[in-house]
Amino acid sequence: MGEERAQESLDELVAALPDGVVTTDPSAIEKYRFDWSKDPDAGTPLAVVRAESAEQVQAAVRWAAKHRVPVVPRGAGSGLSGGSSAVDGGIVLSLERMREIRIDAACQVAVVEPGAFNIEVKQAAAKEGLWYPPDPSSYEICSIGGNVATNAGGLCCVKYGVTTDYVLGMDVVLADGTLITLGGKRIKDVAGLSLLKLFVGSEGTLGIVTSATLRLVPAPLPAATLVASFDSVGDAADAVVAVRRALRPSMMELMDNASINAVEDHTQMGLDRSAGALLIAQSDAPGAACSEEIEAVRSCCERAGATEVFVTEDADEGEMFVAARRVAFPAIEARGTLMLEDVGAPIPVLPELLAAVAKIAEEHGLEIPVVAHAGDGNTHPIIVYDAADPESEKRARAAFDDIMQVAIALGGTISGEHGVGRTKKGALPDQLGEDVMALSRRIKDALDPDGILNPGAVL
Amino acid sequence: MGEERAQESLDELVAALPDGVVTTDPSAIEKYRFDWSKDPDAGTPLAVVRAESAEQVQAAVRWAAKHRVPVVPRGAGSGLSGGSSAVDGGIVLSLERMREIRIDAACQVAVVEPGAFNIEVKQAAAKEGLWYPPDPSSYEICSIGGNVATNAGGLCCVKYGVTTDYVLGMDVVLADGTLITLGGKRIKDVAGLSLLKLFVGSEGTLGIVTSATLRLVPAPLPAATLVASFDSVGDAADAVVAVRRALRPSMMELMDNASINAVEDHTQMGLDRSAGALLIAQSDAPGAACSEEIEAVRSCCERAGATEVFVTEDADEGEMFVAARRVAFPAIEARGTLMLEDVGAPIPVLPELLAAVAKIAEEHGLEIPVVAHAGDGNTHPIIVYDAADPESEKRARAAFDDIMQVAIALGGTISGEHGVGRTKKGALPDQLGEDVMALSRRIKDALDPDGILNPGAVL
Repeated sequence: MGEERAQESLDELVAALPDGVVTTDPSAIEKYRFDWSKDPDAGTPLAVVRAESAEQVQAAVRWAAKHRVPVVPRGAGSGLSGGSSAVDGGIVLSLERMREIRIDAACQVAVVEPGAFNIEVKQAAAKEGLWYPPDPSSYEICSIGGNVATNAGGLCCVKYGVTTDYVLGMDVVLADGTLITLGGKRIKDVAGLSLLKLFVGSEGTLGIVTSATLRLVPAPLPAATLVASFDSVGDAADAVVAVRRALRPSMMELMDNASINAVEDHTQMGLDRSAGALLIAQSDAPGAACSEEIEAVRSCCERAGATEVFVTEDADEGEMFVAARRVAFPAIEARGTLMLEDVGAPIPVLPELLAAVAKIAEEHGLEIPVVAHAGDGNTHPIIVYDAADPESEKRARAAFDDIMQVAIALGGTISGEHGVGRTKKGALPDQLGEDVMALSRRIKDALDPDGILNPGAVL
Repeated sequence: MGEERAQESLDELVAALPDGVVTTDPSAIEKYRFDWSKDPDAGTPLAVVRAESAEQVQAAVRWAAKHRVPVVPRGAGSGLSGGSSAVDGGIVLSLERMREIRIDAACQVAVVEPGAFNIEVKQAAAKEGLWYPPDPSSYEICSIGGNVATNAGGLCCVKYGVTTDYVLGMDVVLADGTLITLGGKRIKDVAGLSLLKLFVGSEGTLGIVTSATLRLVPAPLPAATLVASFDSVGDAADAVVAVRRALRPSMMELMDNASINAVEDHTQMGLDRSAGALLIAQSDAPGAACSEEIEAVRSCCERAGATEVFVTEDADEGEMFVAARRVAFPAIEARGTLMLEDVGAPIPVLPELLAAVAKIAEEHGLEIPVVAHAGDGNTHPIIVYDAADPESEKRARAAFDDIMQVAIALGGTISGEHGVGRTKKGALPDQLGEDVMALSRRIKDALDPDGILNPGAVL
C-alpha cells in the first residue's frame, strides 16, 4: 500500500472507532512491537487498536479485510514465541482493555474477555469457592486470550490438563469481521464439528477470540510437597514414569544440574549443587490420602535411586521449594540473555532429550540449563547467550534449532505449551511433515483466504 | 453412475484389495445398512469394504475419490444417530477387522486400531495397572473408532472427561487417500493447528481414523455409591449443582419418575415408584477420602431435600444400584420402540429441560422416560412409540424435534455424546446458527472438496 493510500485508509479506521481506540503515535506503537520472545524480526505496525468490545474488534477486522491489512492480535504481550510480534504495514489489535470476568457459580463457568489476566480469573473464581486450574508460570501477567490462543499449560496440568480442557465456549471474530459464538455453558456438547477446539491453540491465525467461557472446578485442596535429589536425569525420569503409572500428582517438576546451580548462584536456598536432577512434586489428594500419596511418590523416588528425599505438608515450606523452581527463570536470566525452548517428548525418553541438550550446549559452547514439567514430558531448555556478541547469538540460534530437531527425532514436539509463533515456525514442517502442513494451510485458507490474520505466525 | 459403469468400477475396487475384503453380496450388505438408530432413510451400499489395514483404507478411499463414490465409515455399528447409515450408491468402509491394541505402559498410552472395542482397550490397559476412562454405556460393544468419531462420553466423564480428552494422536486417511499422522505419545503438544481435536467428533465427515493413540491413567480406585430419592427433578438438580461446586464425584446419574417406574416394571429392584427423581452418585476418592466424599454428597442431597439417601461402600451392592441405571434402556425398550435423545443443557436448567420433556410427552401422548448424566447436564429422554403404528411414529418424530428445540432454547445442545449423524442433522442449524454452519461447510469443503466422506451426516 502506498504511503498516501495507507494514511487515507488509516483515517477511515480512526473514524470507525471511538476516540482513543486507535493509536498511530510512534512512541506508543513501539511498545506493541514485541512480545517476550523479543523477536528481532518484529516489524512496526501502522497503528495499534486497543479494542474495548467485540464490536470494535469487528470494526477493525472489517477495515483490515477491506484494505488487506495484516492484523496481529495481542493479549498481554507475554508470549514466548513471537506469536504477537508486530508486522510491518499491519495493525496490532490489542485486547488489553477487554477484561470483564463474569462468574456463573451454578454453571461453574467464567465468561471472560480476552484481556483479563489468568490470575484475575483465578481470583474471581476463588470468591465463589471455585478454581480455574491452568497455571502458566506467567499466570500473574498473561492474558486469557493469549492462554486460549496458545493452549497454554502450566505446572498443575500434569493432573488438571491444559487450557483446551477448560474452554467450553467462545466468541470469535472471523477474518471477514463476522462474530460467531461456539459452545456455551454446557459441559458436554458434540453437535457439529469441534470448531471450538480448532480455535484453541490457533495463535490468532484463524480468528480473534473476544470472549471465552471457561470451565471451573471446586477449589483446590492443600498440597503436600516433595523434593527429591537424583544422581542423574535418567533416575529422575524413571521416578516420574513410576509415579505417573500409579499416582496422580498435582505437580511434577524437574530441574537439571545446570538450573539447580543457576538458582543456587542467584538465591542461596541450600539446594544440592552436585545433584544431577531435582524433582519437585505435589499431591493435593483429599484428606489423609494427601500424605499417603506423597509418601507413595517418595517410595517411587527412592526405588528409582533418589539420593535424598524431603517431604513437607506445611504449605509455606512447600511453597518455598516450588519457589526454587519458579525462580529458575530470573536466576538464569541473571547469567545472560535467554532463548527459551519449550520442547516435549514422551516421558521415558526425557533422559535422552536432556542428554542431547547437554551435548548441544557443549558443542556450541553455551550454558543451557533445563527446567521441565517432567510429569508431562514438557521441558524448557534455556539457552543463555551474550546479546552484545553476534557470534554468541548465532551459536544460540543454532542450538535453538538443534534442540527442536532432537525433540522431533525423539518423537516429541517443538512446543508443549508456548506455541510456535514466529520463532519456531521454521521447524514446524520438520515435525508435522508436508501433508499435515498442506492440510493446515487448507484450513487456514478456508478461514482466512486473504491471509490477514497474524500472517507469518505458525504457518 | 450408470449400472454398467458402477459394476466396472466395483471390479476395480475388488481387484485393488485382497480376497474377502470387498463384499457385494446383498445379504451380507444388508447387515451394514443400519446402526442402532435404525434410521429409516438408510440406503443400500454398492459394496462393503472390510479393511484390514490403513493401506486398504487408503486403497478404498482412493478408489472412491476417483469415482466420486460416497464412503460411509463404520466401526461396530452401535451408533445412535445414524452416523453410519449406509448411502445408496456408496460403499460402507467397515473398520471391524482392524482391532490391534498395543499398550505402551511407560508412555501410558494405548495405540489402538479403530475396530477394537472400548472394553478391549480397558482390559488391555488393566493388565498393566492402567485405565482408559471413557465409558459410554455401550462400552462392551462399541468401537474406539466410533468413540473417536462421536467424541463419546459416558458415566465417568463427570470426573474424567470425554474421549477427546484422551486422544493424543491419530492416523487419518483423508478424502484423497493420503494417510497423515497427528500428535503422538507426547502428552502436551501445541505445535501447529489443533487438527487432532478437529477430527475427534467429526463423525467420519473429514477423514477416516485408522489408529488412535489414547492416553491412559492409573487404575481406578474402589468406589462408594450413593442413591438418593427426591420429590422432584428440581430438588435433584439443586443437589447436583451443590455437589459439583464442592466435590468431584466419579458418577452422577439421574433417573426421572418415568424411568424409575419402567425399571421397576421390568426388574423389581424395590425402587421408590413415587420418587420424582433418583440420583446415583459415586466417589472414587482415594482411601478415607472416599467415604468422606460420599458423605459430603449425602449432605448436599439432604440439604437439597432428598427424601431418602442410601450409601454403600460395598462394591457389589454399589454395582447393583448402578445396574438399576444401566437396565433403564432394556427396561424401557420392553415398552415399545425407542427414539433416543441426547440433549444437554447447563446443569441449573435441567429442571426446566425435564419439565419441558414431560410437557412434550403429554402433548404428544407418549411415554418419554429420562435418564441423565446429570453431573454433565447431558440427558437421554427416551421416546417410546409403537413402530407398527405410523401415527405413533409421527408423534414420536414430532416429540423428538420438539425436545431438541427446547434444549436449544435453554442454551443447551442437541447432542451431548452420541453425535448428530443423520437423525439430528435437521436441528443442527437451529443450534449453531447460519454463520457457524457456513464456517463448518468451509472446513468440510477444504478437507473433502468432492463430499465423498459420509455425505449426509452432520452437515
